[in-house]
Amino acid sequence: MTAWVDGQPADSLALANRGLAYGDGLFETIAVRAGQPLLFDRHVQRLAVSCQRLGIEADLALIRAEMTRFARQLDAGVMKLILTRGDSQRGYAPAAGAAPRRILQGSPAPVYPAGHFAQGVRLYECQTRLAEQPLLAGIKHLNRLEQVLARAEWQTPEFAEGLMRDTSGRPVEGVYSNLFVVRDGRLITADLQRCGVAGVMRAELLDQAPTLGIAVEVRDLSMSDLEQADELFVCNSVYGIWPVRGFAQLNWPVGPLTRRMQAVAYALLGS
Amino acid sequence: MTAWVDGQPADSLALANRGLAYGDGLFETIAVRAGQPLLFDRHVQRLAVSCQRLGIEADLALIRAEMTRFARQLDAGVMKLILTRGDSQRGYAPAAGAAPRRILQGSPAPVYPAGHFAQGVRLYECQTRLAEQPLLAGIKHLNRLEQVLARAEWQTPEFAEGLMRDTSGRPVEGVYSNLFVVRDGRLITADLQRCGVAGVMRAELLDQAPTLGIAVEVRDLSMSDLEQADELFVCNSVYGIWPVRGFAQLNWPVGPLTRRMQAVAYALLGS
Repeated sequence: MTAWVDGQPADSLALANRGLAYGDGLFETIAVRAGQPLLFDRHVQRLAVSCQRLGIEADLALIRAEMTRFARQLDAGVMKLILTRGDSQRGYAPAAGAAPRRILQGSPAPVYPAGHFAQGVRLYECQTRLAEQPLLAGIKHLNRLEQVLARAEWQTPEFAEGLMRDTSGRPVEGVYSNLFVVRDGRLITADLQRCGVAGVMRAELLDQAPTLGIAVEVRDLSMSDLEQADELFVCNSVYGIWPVRGFAQLNWPVGPLTRRMQAVAYALLGS
Repeated sequence: MTAWVDGQPADSLALANRGLAYGDGLFETIAVRAGQPLLFDRHVQRLAVSCQRLGIEADLALIRAEMTRFARQLDAGVMKLILTRGDSQRGYAPAAGAAPRRILQGSPAPVYPAGHFAQGVRLYECQTRLAEQPLLAGIKHLNRLEQVLARAEWQTPEFAEGLMRDTSGRPVEGVYSNLFVVRDGRLITADLQRCGVAGVMRAELLDQAPTLGIAVEVRDLSMSDLEQADELFVCNSVYGIWPVRGFAQLNWPVGPLTRRMQAVAYALLGS
């Protein structure tokens, strides 16, 4: 696995890094094709918003340039950026003038079963709930124990993804993806003001759907939204869109709106 | 700063470590005096409980032996253990058979103003709230962005500690410490079933107080518990106990029960 730290090839990191000590940082997982990072502007934009939220003063132009170079070298696969607040001595208070540290890691493009795209996937019913923390909601920070615990709940390949609810019981997202409900020709996805990760593909779909004449709604979801859904799908910026065919006792067909949005994702990711 | 990784001197860590990627691990901060880790059994016990909660299969006898050796070499100061789930490739699912990784870091004993112990401290009123996540409550895991954000709220040395409330508004703990309320001769501290870190000094005080004829209560706190408190103090396993003399508009004297518990902490930490 190719990796850079602060623009230089490296395979290790100083123990004093606050990413290790406190999960004090952010990450982005970016598909790369023909040397190009895909949905790149949106990834950088989310990173900027996330840095602002955590008060990490990063040089985004530098990071963008480094990612561009890294992607060219990787050519195809997945580029992961970890941006931490930098190094510090013991204690939660950041060291004055600590420089944010940039870690880039490349990995081969994951290969998913063709059936995930064609016939859809089943979602595991995760018992691990998402805590409600508005200060961290939406951003892709490094505090990911909830996702680790949720993913550890199932081993069987029968489930390609798991559905996570918040501590109030509302369905929010997949462990690795955002969730869309299709109802009466509209797209509905969870509001992420209290928890969840505002995915780059989700943002892109929310932007493009209205230009295709498809109404979108961003609001709290309930279990009855799933029961009443005509179609369901999950999305992320690496694989695009998988129709959801089953969750718990519920089943859905792979419907026309999911297929239309898959075409949008396909055009963005070209895979 | 002396440091070991898996028992060997080291100053860096593999980039593939899940502690960095997801905060997938635990830590303990242990005072060391005359080569001995203090409150050692309690620290190891909490680590065991935390490992079980996160499903990290660690060799606790090995970790205990390593910490004993490390403390002897450090002689005096603070020993920090970070235990991560180990290394893995991309993805939340742990690699099969990944070995937990043990990181030990030593630092000099922090020097606190004598007035913190004698006249007490003022608590900053943190706006950062603790999210309610029963699965992670009580354990000292590496997902510490809430503490980082809370600690970044104040710079003035007027405040030695900050008070954190949960998202429902209940006072819970300090950024670095647990909180005790004294009322009518009883000790009351927050129940930590939904958030917070169950500190080792807190556990020790809860155990010892009844043997001194002091009743203890562990339950949800409210702001009116603070308003009605006769005394207030914060504690941790490094400095022991600081009386709290002020928080927001409230003020407290340094009372007799705080002094008695300070003597208990002093006997445990010998400082």
